Amino acid sequence: MSESIESRLSELGLSLPEVPAPLAAYVNCVRTGDLLFLSGGLPIDGGRAVTGKVPVDVTVEEAAEAARIAILNRLAVIKAEVGSLDKVARIVTLNGFVSSAPDFYDHPKVINGASELLLEIFGDKGRHSRTALGVSALPLNCAVEINLVVEIEA
Amino acid sequence: MSESIESRLSELGLSLPEVPAPLAAYVNCVRTGDLLFLSGGLPIDGGRAVTGKVPVDVTVEEAAEAARIAILNRLAVIKAEVGSLDKVARIVTLNGFVSSAPDFYDHPKVINGASELLLEIFGDKGRHSRTALGVSALPLNCAVEINLVVEIEA
Amino acid sequence: MSESIESRLSELGLSLPEVPAPLAAYVNCVRTGDLLFLSGGLPIDGGRAVTGKVPVDVTVEEAAEAARIAILNRLAVIKAEVGSLDKVARIVTLNGFVSSAPDFYDHPKVINGASELLLEIFGDKGRHSRTALGVSALPLNCAVEINLVVEIEA
Repeated sequence: MSESIESRLSELGLSLPEVPAPLAAYVNCVRTGDLLFLSGGLPIDGGRAVTGKVPVDVTVEEAAEAARIAILNRLAVIKAEVGSLDKVARIVTLNGFVSSAPDFYDHPKVINGASELLLEIFGDKGRHSRTALGVSALPLNCAVEINLVVEIEA
Repeated sequence: MSESIESRLSELGLSLPEVPAPLAAYVNCVRTGDLLFLSGGLPIDGGRAVTGKVPVDVTVEEAAEAARIAILNRLAVIKAEVGSLDKVARIVTLNGFVSSAPDFYDHPKVINGASELLLEIFGDKGRHSRTALGVSALPLNCAVEINLVVEIEA
Repeated sequence: MSESIESRLSELGLSLPEVPAPLAAYVNCVRTGDLLFLSGGLPIDGGRAVTGKVPVDVTVEEAAEAARIAILNRLAVIKAEVGSLDKVARIVTLNGFVSSAPDFYDHPKVINGASELLLEIFGDKGRHSRTALGVSALPLNCAVEINLVVEIEA
């Protein structure tokens, strides 16, 4: 029997944050059939948010770490919804938005913070399709925002 | 038997606009299984479009109203496709794009115009996941653009 | 029996490029049920990438051609994944991002390069829902980025 995802998180020295409260009139995720559509998650860990534009206010490395923080709070949402991260059959797709200047082109390096963490945690089930791009600004001036579609075991 | 969605719209003093013509070589929505993927909708009501950037040309309140207009024309699309809004099983996810300056961070307030209207109309079936963000510009200089994935009753 | 999609490509004078290598820690597509979620594709053809902002560095016509190039490499991804483009049941939805200035509003004309090509190749199966919009910058300074959801025959 393979190791549980929660054990894997512990091995990596990671823990899930509190499930974040949505900023407004929506919910953190909706399940339809075997697919879970997650709301855009921000790099907020407790009271601390990673804010500003990449790379002027936030370095590429800091933004990649912000992407990891956003993924951890998305995983907290998934666990709260389906009971256990072991029920994740596949990370299907991920959209990563980077708040950045018009002359910044390294969005893939930033969003790799999210993608690599998913691979570390979920292994082959974490191999996802992805779109990364730069946008003019994000809610609360956050540096990154990430949404996901996840397949849950039937 | 619960009230119909069309009655609910009337109670709210709302009516559906004409189904908008796509701007180009695409269609308003595509159904696959029980999911309906809607094209990005713009805040166009008859001949009037809400154009400009938030908050310089368009206030947050005007942009939230624009988001409501976009939702109403998306609902017209759903009705035209499946025959009745009563067949909506769930609003699954909503992406809301706000044409805004790099120092505007209140996208959630704008897109709440859409989200709150969906809750008013559909109740629990209207509770959706969501991503809101700021982009440099939208088609026809519109202030907001919204797309949706909706689950239709099997 | 209807003509194969590969024959149709030949008639149009088109051929599929090599399957592009993902830029980072993700995969080109993930299938879940009958849906294939494709990663954001860039206008890269062999060693040549269409880079810069529309319309300052890249004209609308050049950007529309870039959108066609992105679609062709997305089709190469689909073929590699499912074996034949004849297994495409429907192009469900397409998101087209245009790297452009805040005063550029003709994103639909640019993304029509992608949409019209899908119609030419797939006919009715190519009729898709769509969202087109302008973003501050794209990976590698590319002019357009396009992702897709495609329904595959069961």
